[in-house]
Amino acid sequence: MRIALGVEYDGSRFCGWQSQPSGCGVQDTLERALSGIAGKPIRAVTAGRTDTGVHALHQVVHFDTDVARPDSAWVRGVNALLPESVGVLWARPVSDEFHARFSAVSRSYRYLLLNHPVRPALLSGKLGWFHQPLDVEAMRQGAQFLLGEHDFSAFRAAECQAKSPIKHLQKVGIETSGEYILFDFTANAFLHHMVRNLVGSLVYVGKGKHSPAWMQELLENRDRTHSAPTFAPDGLYLARIGYDPKWDIPHLSRMPNFAD
Amino acid sequence: MRIALGVEYDGSRFCGWQSQPSGCGVQDTLERALSGIAGKPIRAVTAGRTDTGVHALHQVVHFDTDVARPDSAWVRGVNALLPESVGVLWARPVSDEFHARFSAVSRSYRYLLLNHPVRPALLSGKLGWFHQPLDVEAMRQGAQFLLGEHDFSAFRAAECQAKSPIKHLQKVGIETSGEYILFDFTANAFLHHMVRNLVGSLVYVGKGKHSPAWMQELLENRDRTHSAPTFAPDGLYLARIGYDPKWDIPHLSRMPNFAD
Repeated sequence: MRIALGVEYDGSRFCGWQSQPSGCGVQDTLERALSGIAGKPIRAVTAGRTDTGVHALHQVVHFDTDVARPDSAWVRGVNALLPESVGVLWARPVSDEFHARFSAVSRSYRYLLLNHPVRPALLSGKLGWFHQPLDVEAMRQGAQFLLGEHDFSAFRAAECQAKSPIKHLQKVGIETSGEYILFDFTANAFLHHMVRNLVGSLVYVGKGKHSPAWMQELLENRDRTHSAPTFAPDGLYLARIGYDPKWDIPHLSRMPNFAD
Repeated sequence: MRIALGVEYDGSRFCGWQSQPSGCGVQDTLERALSGIAGKPIRAVTAGRTDTGVHALHQVVHFDTDVARPDSAWVRGVNALLPESVGVLWARPVSDEFHARFSAVSRSYRYLLLNHPVRPALLSGKLGWFHQPLDVEAMRQGAQFLLGEHDFSAFRAAECQAKSPIKHLQKVGIETSGEYILFDFTANAFLHHMVRNLVGSLVYVGKGKHSPAWMQELLENRDRTHSAPTFAPDGLYLARIGYDPKWDIPHLSRMPNFAD
């Protein structure tokens, strides 16, 4: 039997999604709790592996088990065994044809940037920060060049394992809310560090170091050394995984309404 | 010379505002950083002592020093010496007649409650939580009984050191935003645990255990044992300190717009 889960976590407490020998990955923690409820080892497969410090508002995971449990055991029971920084939002049986990663048709990430002279304190670890004023309209213009199918090599980490640097950026949005700037990106898939590298380069545009058209130059040059440094993971949230409606995968996000 | 500061902090990382022999108070941490910039010991006086786990969006502090520093040294310099969970938002010289605590004419607290079947994960430590649906309109009706000057003994912790249990509740508001319920309280001053005890009893009204008029009965009975258990500190934020405009104390809050 295959079960799908929605999972929320504070990435600052983990060394990323992926299982590590030291056991510090979200995957390690979740598998321990799932195995505790099943009474036997369980391996979890995720829609999107997040890096150290990157948060998830709604990660999707599946696992296979021959142990019958009510859905509530996979939510409340598992949550009782998890540390407070990670929680299962929902659980439901799915077709064996469903695969959390390979069935996903899109991923959406949100980057939350505090744009204020003074660094974050209350929400430290949950926000990116830039101290100088940013020209949001210039960043919006620059972001338009990113839409569509492109070779995103300029925004790809050296250690990226993706087969192709060509991705389809379906949506990009930049909104403000008080002292905050919210960047929203939806693509079929993302390269390693791609969102953090895009935000870094958009901030260069916003502070006036480059014109909006510089984003297009970066895409065309396909050279990571030309674009801006990788922005901090603190403000990055995996927000949504898109699936064909036939799988009937719920979406649930409890993000406070920063500008929504 | 007297300097006033605005301070933001994540209360989950400290044992409350007040200085402790172990040095775990926000006050200890802030005084160490201020003393580092001054090159001599500094004692900080606060508008409102917060308990362990209670956050501050905008705490006001003053201190006296004969060391001349630009205002920016008391912000950026001090922030460089503080842990990431506490930060100075602004600094400015004030009259020697100004006193962070005794000049304050009001305090405002916000309580953020996640009202959802599944406990918080991403924002654990930053939210209160109640799993059953709550009748917000009933809670609003109950809250109206609290407005004005009352003996709040029913909502006072045993260890409260206030001279009088009579406080003037000037404003109370209950708003919803997605899965969140926001409680806002403004009073001349609060008793120990008063906001958390008020929220606990309002939640009893919201879940239908008592009618809204029960809030008035509690006030009249003045007996702490009749009211509901103290709610968790996690969702409580010191939001604003009110002063006479003659002191020219800035207000700055970088709370994300939960429903604002």
